[in-house]
Amino acid sequence: MSLLFKNLRIHQVFGANTDVGKTLLTAALVRASAAKEKQVFYLKPVSTGPLEDADDAHVKRFAGPNAKLVHPRCLFRFDEPVSPHLAATMAIDAGKKEVVIPSDEAFVNSVASHIRQMALYASDARPSHMYVETAGGVHSPTLSGTTQLDAYRPLFLPTILVGDSRLGGISSTISAYESLLLRGYIVDAILLFRDAYYRNFEYLNPYFAERGVHVTAVEPPPDKQRDFDQNFATTEKYYASVAQEGRDGGVAGVVDHLDACHQKRLAELDSMPRRTLDTVWWPFVQHEHVQRESDVNVIDSAHADFFTIFNGKKQPSTTSTTKTTPSSLLQPQLDGSASWWTQALGHAHPRLALAAARAAGRYGHVMFPTATHLPALKLAERLVHEGPGKGWASRAFFSDDGSTGMEVALKMALRAFSSRHGLQGADRKKLGVLGLRGSYHGDTIGAMDACEDAGVYTCEWHNAKGFWFDPPSVAIRKGKTVVRLPAAIAARTEEGAEDVETGSLSWTYDVEKRLVTPLAGVYRDYISTTLEKLREKGEHRLAALVVEPLVMGAGGMIFVDPLFQRVLVDVVRGTPASSSAGDWSGMPVIFDEVFVGLYRLGQETTSPLLGVAPDVSVHAKILTGGLVPLAVTLASDAIFKAFWSEKKTDALLHGHSYTAHAVGCEVANETLRILDGIKGSEAWAEAKGRWLGGATEDAKDETAAVWSFWDPSFVDALSRSEAVEEVMTMGTVLAIKIKDEGAGYASTSAQSALVSLAEVGQQGEQLTAAPGGAPYNVHYRTLGDVAYFMLSLNTPPSLARSMEDKIWRALLH
Amino acid sequence: MSLLFKNLRIHQVFGANTDVGKTLLTAALVRASAAKEKQVFYLKPVSTGPLEDADDAHVKRFAGPNAKLVHPRCLFRFDEPVSPHLAATMAIDAGKKEVVIPSDEAFVNSVASHIRQMALYASDARPSHMYVETAGGVHSPTLSGTTQLDAYRPLFLPTILVGDSRLGGISSTISAYESLLLRGYIVDAILLFRDAYYRNFEYLNPYFAERGVHVTAVEPPPDKQRDFDQNFATTEKYYASVAQEGRDGGVAGVVDHLDACHQKRLAELDSMPRRTLDTVWWPFVQHEHVQRESDVNVIDSAHADFFTIFNGKKQPSTTSTTKTTPSSLLQPQLDGSASWWTQALGHAHPRLALAAARAAGRYGHVMFPTATHLPALKLAERLVHEGPGKGWASRAFFSDDGSTGMEVALKMALRAFSSRHGLQGADRKKLGVLGLRGSYHGDTIGAMDACEDAGVYTCEWHNAKGFWFDPPSVAIRKGKTVVRLPAAIAARTEEGAEDVETGSLSWTYDVEKRLVTPLAGVYRDYISTTLEKLREKGEHRLAALVVEPLVMGAGGMIFVDPLFQRVLVDVVRGTPASSSAGDWSGMPVIFDEVFVGLYRLGQETTSPLLGVAPDVSVHAKILTGGLVPLAVTLASDAIFKAFWSEKKTDALLHGHSYTAHAVGCEVANETLRILDGIKGSEAWAEAKGRWLGGATEDAKDETAAVWSFWDPSFVDALSRSEAVEEVMTMGTVLAIKIKDEGAGYASTSAQSALVSLAEVGQQGEQLTAAPGGAPYNVHYRTLGDVAYFMLSLNTPPSLARSMEDKIWRALLH
Repeated sequence: MSLLFKNLRIHQVFGANTDVGKTLLTAALVRASAAKEKQVFYLKPVSTGPLEDADDAHVKRFAGPNAKLVHPRCLFRFDEPVSPHLAATMAIDAGKKEVVIPSDEAFVNSVASHIRQMALYASDARPSHMYVETAGGVHSPTLSGTTQLDAYRPLFLPTILVGDSRLGGISSTISAYESLLLRGYIVDAILLFRDAYYRNFEYLNPYFAERGVHVTAVEPPPDKQRDFDQNFATTEKYYASVAQEGRDGGVAGVVDHLDACHQKRLAELDSMPRRTLDTVWWPFVQHEHVQRESDVNVIDSAHADFFTIFNGKKQPSTTSTTKTTPSSLLQPQLDGSASWWTQALGHAHPRLALAAARAAGRYGHVMFPTATHLPALKLAERLVHEGPGKGWASRAFFSDDGSTGMEVALKMALRAFSSRHGLQGADRKKLGVLGLRGSYHGDTIGAMDACEDAGVYTCEWHNAKGFWFDPPSVAIRKGKTVVRLPAAIAARTEEGAEDVETGSLSWTYDVEKRLVTPLAGVYRDYISTTLEKLREKGEHRLAALVVEPLVMGAGGMIFVDPLFQRVLVDVVRGTPASSSAGDWSGMPVIFDEVFVGLYRLGQETTSPLLGVAPDVSVHAKILTGGLVPLAVTLASDAIFKAFWSEKKTDALLHGHSYTAHAVGCEVANETLRILDGIKGSEAWAEAKGRWLGGATEDAKDETAAVWSFWDPSFVDALSRSEAVEEVMTMGTVLAIKIKDEGAGYASTSAQSALVSLAEVGQQGEQLTAAPGGAPYNVHYRTLGDVAYFMLSLNTPPSLARSMEDKIWRALLH
Repeated sequence: MSLLFKNLRIHQVFGANTDVGKTLLTAALVRASAAKEKQVFYLKPVSTGPLEDADDAHVKRFAGPNAKLVHPRCLFRFDEPVSPHLAATMAIDAGKKEVVIPSDEAFVNSVASHIRQMALYASDARPSHMYVETAGGVHSPTLSGTTQLDAYRPLFLPTILVGDSRLGGISSTISAYESLLLRGYIVDAILLFRDAYYRNFEYLNPYFAERGVHVTAVEPPPDKQRDFDQNFATTEKYYASVAQEGRDGGVAGVVDHLDACHQKRLAELDSMPRRTLDTVWWPFVQHEHVQRESDVNVIDSAHADFFTIFNGKKQPSTTSTTKTTPSSLLQPQLDGSASWWTQALGHAHPRLALAAARAAGRYGHVMFPTATHLPALKLAERLVHEGPGKGWASRAFFSDDGSTGMEVALKMALRAFSSRHGLQGADRKKLGVLGLRGSYHGDTIGAMDACEDAGVYTCEWHNAKGFWFDPPSVAIRKGKTVVRLPAAIAARTEEGAEDVETGSLSWTYDVEKRLVTPLAGVYRDYISTTLEKLREKGEHRLAALVVEPLVMGAGGMIFVDPLFQRVLVDVVRGTPASSSAGDWSGMPVIFDEVFVGLYRLGQETTSPLLGVAPDVSVHAKILTGGLVPLAVTLASDAIFKAFWSEKKTDALLHGHSYTAHAVGCEVANETLRILDGIKGSEAWAEAKGRWLGGATEDAKDETAAVWSFWDPSFVDALSRSEAVEEVMTMGTVLAIKIKDEGAGYASTSAQSALVSLAEVGQQGEQLTAAPGGAPYNVHYRTLGDVAYFMLSLNTPPSLARSMEDKIWRALLH
């Protein structure tokens, strides 16, 4: 949730190791802050070791004369001087029944609660200071066993690193710093003792200056005295000395520096909206509509399913809020569209960050033609042999994003077609594609040309080449699964109705069974007849079938009747038998799985559900877990062989400079590894159970079953709501079509129906499902009259339920 | 250089901290290896502390009965038990004249030399083992002050991390591991003592199992005895015990595991060519031409300007090589094309890896429309206000690569043109661009459509829209700078000659002075007349001028006469005065600076040299220092305003999912920060000095001066060589046109003339400029009869000289 208050400057103190002087230097900072007549807060969330040496007591004891030190506190205290996770276990083993190990979520919530409570006391007139001291080194495990860097990460407090002044301390200080950066932490200062023998500070000062980090070498503490009083006196004298204003080797200057960092951060956040409005040209945004600073979503950091956004431009000034509700200037915002459908594992996943670093450190980027490296090779093999290409693909071609991946797919399919038919010159240029109305394949001109030009999403050089069927679609209306037929198809059915109830979702997606229904026959005839007419007309020679299987995303989250897509493939290929053949027939079939693939809809690939495999498929978005751009186009051997020749110029002459960049490939491999783990998780089993019940057991392959992370009863209730026209869900996706009289693409009904989602709840006592339990709002996107929501593949069920509540309340609003 | 021998398994031992038992556990490993009747080598490159405690002596003493321990050795030894960089300085301060602090390069060379020497002794029959022990923690500075992780990185030896079993040791072990990964190191095993009280191994075991790393908890050593003999006996007994086969808490199993890792690595490298040939579809490669395993460049890692490649498929088997030249299975290969022109700072730059990690850890990727985050905002501001956009641009639009960046640029320019002229419907679709023959703007269809279709680089949907001038070009022939005019232009000059000597390179690129020459007039008339004819013909309405300023890269490294490009811009804009106006006139001008920008040619941008700024420019490749894909299209305010309207659909409807991804932006910011540093470096000053002499001082702006990292006398000599038709250089680029009777695009003359560059020299005593002093070959690319070479912006001058030598010798070959 990231806590940031104007009048309370908070820093979290991490140690490069245990026993490096963390408490001592924090006590010195507290004292120096107090000496500047600041109100100071000190929190040590977890403390281990004998009570008589307790850090909070020590800090209190030496805070200085007249210090306004408020509630120095430990939240969890254990006697054993061992790592907190071990201390907690030992306490339980020793029979201390009052000890309960909090979950990471509960732990962060209690720290956040304490900080928010303290913020109540923070003086308005004079900014207060707060120091949150951690235990041990940066990666020491906290109570649950999660290491501190990861456990505290949702709070994203700016940090101070206490370096190690002993032998080996250069190494441990730099490594600890790197671990902090790997989690994205802001490191405002490094403090360490000025050890005259090892002189680590002499080394670390320029090292970190080059990296823009402020290092201060502090006068070391006096040796411990045996006599208590004498010891107290010496220590008191030491603190008085290091906290003294203007003293070399003291910390008063550090406190000023930390204040300056805080002010700079506030000023930067404050200036970002204006500067962005002045310099950035956003994608898909009409800037005329977004001119106010409050319209700019300032994302300070992100974690799991949440952005942390700056709300300084959005709320009334601090002075007007009542003191019972101190508002953090940063607040969690649920990333309701999974950042344009890219997120699979949430933001800033530490394993993905480490994978990126690992590949960057081993390879950087290395050029790919006629070369190979492990990350690319492993990814290619995984996708071709075990992933979406299993059973039909033979090759992986890398590019940079879904759009370029589709351009590659189109070049492959068109060439395969023109080669087989011996087309030359102008005949090659006249090829078109067959697709569905509402398709979207990306923003480069070639990808656009594979989509219809409906006059809205188009540009000067867009020249749509082909024919697009108006497809039947699936939705849930008033609790019933309905296939809506376009008039032209409806007219061919016996009943003539545009809406056909199909009984259940699972029946609707049981394509094999539906293949023998009358509707399949109607589809077959309709498609064949239309194609025949097109051939007669002869405008384009159709050379490839290009579809987004199951769902057309950008076109309005249209869930296409899978039976229609299956029949379309079968008709195009001429004989149903050819679907599973190694070679393509009729025309190559391209599946654009950029949005729908890799479990976005609950299945790794859409092929098992449709019962047919493509000849070419495209994968991106989730592929890298939502971290960096990368796309892979898979192709069958027959497609690959169409480019095989003695002539260099017959090759697929396409390639981006960063083709198969190691960072992207390594992150993709790590993503797929993590997905392999979570697809067997309890959360998945539970979600599947709710949708499938025992259904999957009666021989039905789970890879071809329809289920959702959204609750079936919530979806059912939504579909019956007055405000809702229809609803549909699969996997992580929930699409809600809002009732709107004057509907269509230009509609803003969805945007306005759910506008209250953008509002943040009152900052109150009740904990929410957001990190730190803070009130949160939802960032969501709409497509005309359709609002959609998308989860990550590891969104906690509790958060999904919380979103369902919010959506429900927003619709009733 | 990465050393890898079949019969010598080498591991480098790093410590999570100092005093964690590194030497002790290494000695145990040595003993366990010896107990398996292996020949064992031990090297501690740098040792500090009293000689009587020396690690090599210790290892030797306890290697066990009949151990075949060969030359346990320290290369650099210091008495003071402090960090090596400090020990070395202290020794010098103490007057020890024999102490010389080696450069990082010399340091790595001496370690590599020793390892190669030892490899001579390694038994063929039975693989030997070698342990290279580091000093202190992973980041402890070595002699020069560079931390060990960075200093040893060129050798890229697989590592063993000795973890810390004490309080705080969980943290330091994980942090040290993360620092190793940030440099890409392979971590084959983690060893630490089994401390029964802190039980770190209990935590670390599952933690690292999840990350695929093998952790072994080893029985801790006995307490030190006062009596020497007794201590020896206890220690000997300890080693005998931990090295014992099959012992729990021993290291014999670790040795087996390390052997297995070594075998797996060898087998993996060996299998990679075949697997790649079977699964990967390479960009721009005719697979029919690349079917042998030896054709596949297996890149095991990369560092600075070098790939490390596996040559196991290329050389005769080990048994046939003489024992005087033990060959590493890995060898350095100079990345002569800067990995498709992307590298600016060399591969695997640690600051870029850390920047990537930092952004991944803070944001992951967050969606960009109507949002902002610091990495994107800072990059936009840097490029618009201080970078290539300075003085003319107002906006930055992000996309994923040069090709998509160009599609964005085209959409911008075409829309600006059609809006101004009120074009609607079909008129909008008929717009064309004006460009130069030989242009290349990327591989997506829109970018291709902005280039001529010469029948070679084309595809089914490629539909070239516009007109392309055949441009005059600049080259150095027989020591003279020559502008070659196309026949149509030559015919208009007084002399009528196609080749015009221009005196010097600097005069040729002094566009302002040349504007008043007769040739400028000829260009002006020729262009105007041609445009007039095109207007009459009326096939396309020309709506944008699209050029690669100065050099057309993929088209054959054609150095276009800058005067021609300047005049072209002036003519298109109507009046020379309008060049500097805020608004565009005539038609918008797009500079594709993807290849030529950001110092590739020695200048941040090409505008000062041409004396005109574009209305739209595109930047990629170097932008991210060669790490990950990212592109930015800059636009003037007049272009931006062409999309400003009340209608959403008038917006620039283009956007990739990963638009402005934080990792790319942060890496770009770090790259630009590093470039700011090196552009003032000695190497740059020296290179400039060689080309410009005192020339820059007579008032000529350095941003508009032509210079090169290649030596002028080398370039001169090349241009006079019998084998060479002409040569040209600017900044990091060197292009050599090889004489070829039947020249043209299909020519392979460049490839064959320089083929010996691909061969590796004899493995001998002489040190090369490659890391570790190893023999290296050069990976280079050709474009028909043109071979080109490209340096990074921080390539050491010594390496540039070494390449010049190689190229020279290859040409004489």
